[in-house]
Amino acid sequence: MTALAGARAQIRDISLENIASLAGGRLGDPSVIPLWFGEGDLQAPDLVGEAMRRAVSEGHVFYAQQNGVPRLREVLAAYLTGLGTRPVGPERITVSQSGMNSIMLALMLSCEAGDNMIAVDPVWPNAGGAARLLGVEARTVRMDFSDDGWSLDPERVAASIDGRTRAVFFASPGNPTGAMLPMDVQAALLETCRRRGVWLIADEVYNRLAFGREAAPTILDIADPEDRLIVVNSFSKAWAMTGWRLGWMVHPPSLAQTLAMMTQYTTSGVTTFLQHAGAAAIREGEPFVAAMRTHCETGMDIVCDALERLPRVRLGPRPQAGMYVFFQVDGLADSRAACADLLARTGVGLAPGAFFGPGCESFLRACVCRDRAALEEAMRRLSAALA
Amino acid sequence: MTALAGARAQIRDISLENIASLAGGRLGDPSVIPLWFGEGDLQAPDLVGEAMRRAVSEGHVFYAQQNGVPRLREVLAAYLTGLGTRPVGPERITVSQSGMNSIMLALMLSCEAGDNMIAVDPVWPNAGGAARLLGVEARTVRMDFSDDGWSLDPERVAASIDGRTRAVFFASPGNPTGAMLPMDVQAALLETCRRRGVWLIADEVYNRLAFGREAAPTILDIADPEDRLIVVNSFSKAWAMTGWRLGWMVHPPSLAQTLAMMTQYTTSGVTTFLQHAGAAAIREGEPFVAAMRTHCETGMDIVCDALERLPRVRLGPRPQAGMYVFFQVDGLADSRAACADLLARTGVGLAPGAFFGPGCESFLRACVCRDRAALEEAMRRLSAALA
Repeated sequence: MTALAGARAQIRDISLENIASLAGGRLGDPSVIPLWFGEGDLQAPDLVGEAMRRAVSEGHVFYAQQNGVPRLREVLAAYLTGLGTRPVGPERITVSQSGMNSIMLALMLSCEAGDNMIAVDPVWPNAGGAARLLGVEARTVRMDFSDDGWSLDPERVAASIDGRTRAVFFASPGNPTGAMLPMDVQAALLETCRRRGVWLIADEVYNRLAFGREAAPTILDIADPEDRLIVVNSFSKAWAMTGWRLGWMVHPPSLAQTLAMMTQYTTSGVTTFLQHAGAAAIREGEPFVAAMRTHCETGMDIVCDALERLPRVRLGPRPQAGMYVFFQVDGLADSRAACADLLARTGVGLAPGAFFGPGCESFLRACVCRDRAALEEAMRRLSAALA
Repeated sequence: MTALAGARAQIRDISLENIASLAGGRLGDPSVIPLWFGEGDLQAPDLVGEAMRRAVSEGHVFYAQQNGVPRLREVLAAYLTGLGTRPVGPERITVSQSGMNSIMLALMLSCEAGDNMIAVDPVWPNAGGAARLLGVEARTVRMDFSDDGWSLDPERVAASIDGRTRAVFFASPGNPTGAMLPMDVQAALLETCRRRGVWLIADEVYNRLAFGREAAPTILDIADPEDRLIVVNSFSKAWAMTGWRLGWMVHPPSLAQTLAMMTQYTTSGVTTFLQHAGAAAIREGEPFVAAMRTHCETGMDIVCDALERLPRVRLGPRPQAGMYVFFQVDGLADSRAACADLLARTGVGLAPGAFFGPGCESFLRACVCRDRAALEEAMRRLSAALA
């Protein structure tokens, strides 16, 4: 008997399937065009590394405040206040190790084993994975997919809340769909959560990658500070800092000290000098964010141009945000097998629709945050295979 | 009603007391001699920062493997194999964000709400804090304090295990005591845990700060790979990397994939380039570790020399490891009030005994990892106040 048998049930039975396991031995294989992860080919601007080096040389190498260093909290507060229509103060911001870490803290705060969380899907699988790790049931409410694109009827979320529901999770812009929930839909979700005493976890990790605009609509524009709302964000996408591990959350002021203690007991806080690098990214990184947005928009056009020529592919309107295209393939019944087959035949790495929700077996996800040559080559290969 | 009222009970009722809250507004006050935290005055050796810069410039800025980059896992495996008597392979190592993060993952793996964990105390309060965050009862079994120092009767741990006990936690060398559990005691704990099917979490964060020896005795020398044992470690202490946030755990090989998924759903993994810096710390940092050990040993002598001259102070034999002295003061009944009073009167920051276990109200903890001038000045002030 291995030690694993002694782990508690929800850990012992955790699914070991993810994109990395699906990739088999081909992660990092230079012959593969990797469109499977939520990671592009750009690196964070040099100013971030320079700020980090400066912070180390200035001695920012010791323990820091559990909510984050005051400098970064203030910079984030000013940034969010400038981006939205309502002011956000530093007392509402806790720096975290990542967007994922923010989601986990939000779930630990709101749910316990036996409760359930409702995620608007198709959805990034790690939100449900985090819930299941806590023994929390991860339910989903499906967005509708039509020729008008992805849309959510908020009444369906309201109808699915029961006595054990403690949290509703949605991402806007969405992963994998890129769909932005209109403000009236977000307002309806917030009102439902207020009425039912349920927490709302809003993932805005892709909010700066909305094409042709400064940012996607944010629920912070309509929420009161003491709403049971946690807005999750990260430096990974807009600042290309995936490997750096830095994120934040906006939360009610009444939770600040509690989140400090939760941070203390889960990670003991975030790398001190990285937080100073994050402040520089926010303050000086806007030209990079604009370039990243253009990079994604250009990539989206390249990939969609090719997909729209394929009769078997159903795409809907092109996504107006994010770094993915999520497309349906006529006749596809097993998205995992299709990804493995496409990888073997074409050397293009995609993510299977099944990872993003029930009933997505006929979908595939491609990351479009890559240079023109790589994307055009990928689409040449895929077009032949999906013809 | 604030949003905090909507958090689940164990979060809503979390104690907000820690050393930082006790310090009031005087954290970072340059007039305070800060002996309250587990953090010294040395900074990580330059080679660590240089390795980090090199890793960034080599492009190690993207997502990495959830168990840690292979290079660091291999370096840690070779390091631990060299330090102990049994080989430790990279398949048993998962890199984590910190020692704290390792403990949290170990607890999530072994315990769920309603279970209990038994910690050998006096003990670092964050182990119990992490348990309570999960709804797990944190019980303690007290070491005996006599003129021979701190000792543990492992039978008392065995006797306190009940049907809801899922984990036993101990630290050796201990925080705050500095006590090292002899191998026969560690073997008895392991045997008890084997017999009862309980997980053993061994915190070896201070193992390289054992005076006059290369390392403290490690349970890895007597455990089988598939024992329900997780050994927690960190770069914070021996390599002075508190603000860097890097640790690891040694675990059964059968848990490697599970821990990868748990990492994915809690933090998404550790900063990629920091892991390369960690590999350099292990490979090239031995001279620094030796200097850190000497620094602590020298500090211990300075502080103990002064404490032993105070008739009200009961110290026992000087600690032979770690970075703290934990001493009893005759007539002290409220260690929190005493720390506040000593801070106000002397400007020396200490940690109250009450934080480290029930029945420690007459104790105070001082960190000795500081230069001679600071420690001598601190002891001059404290000697007058404790006379």
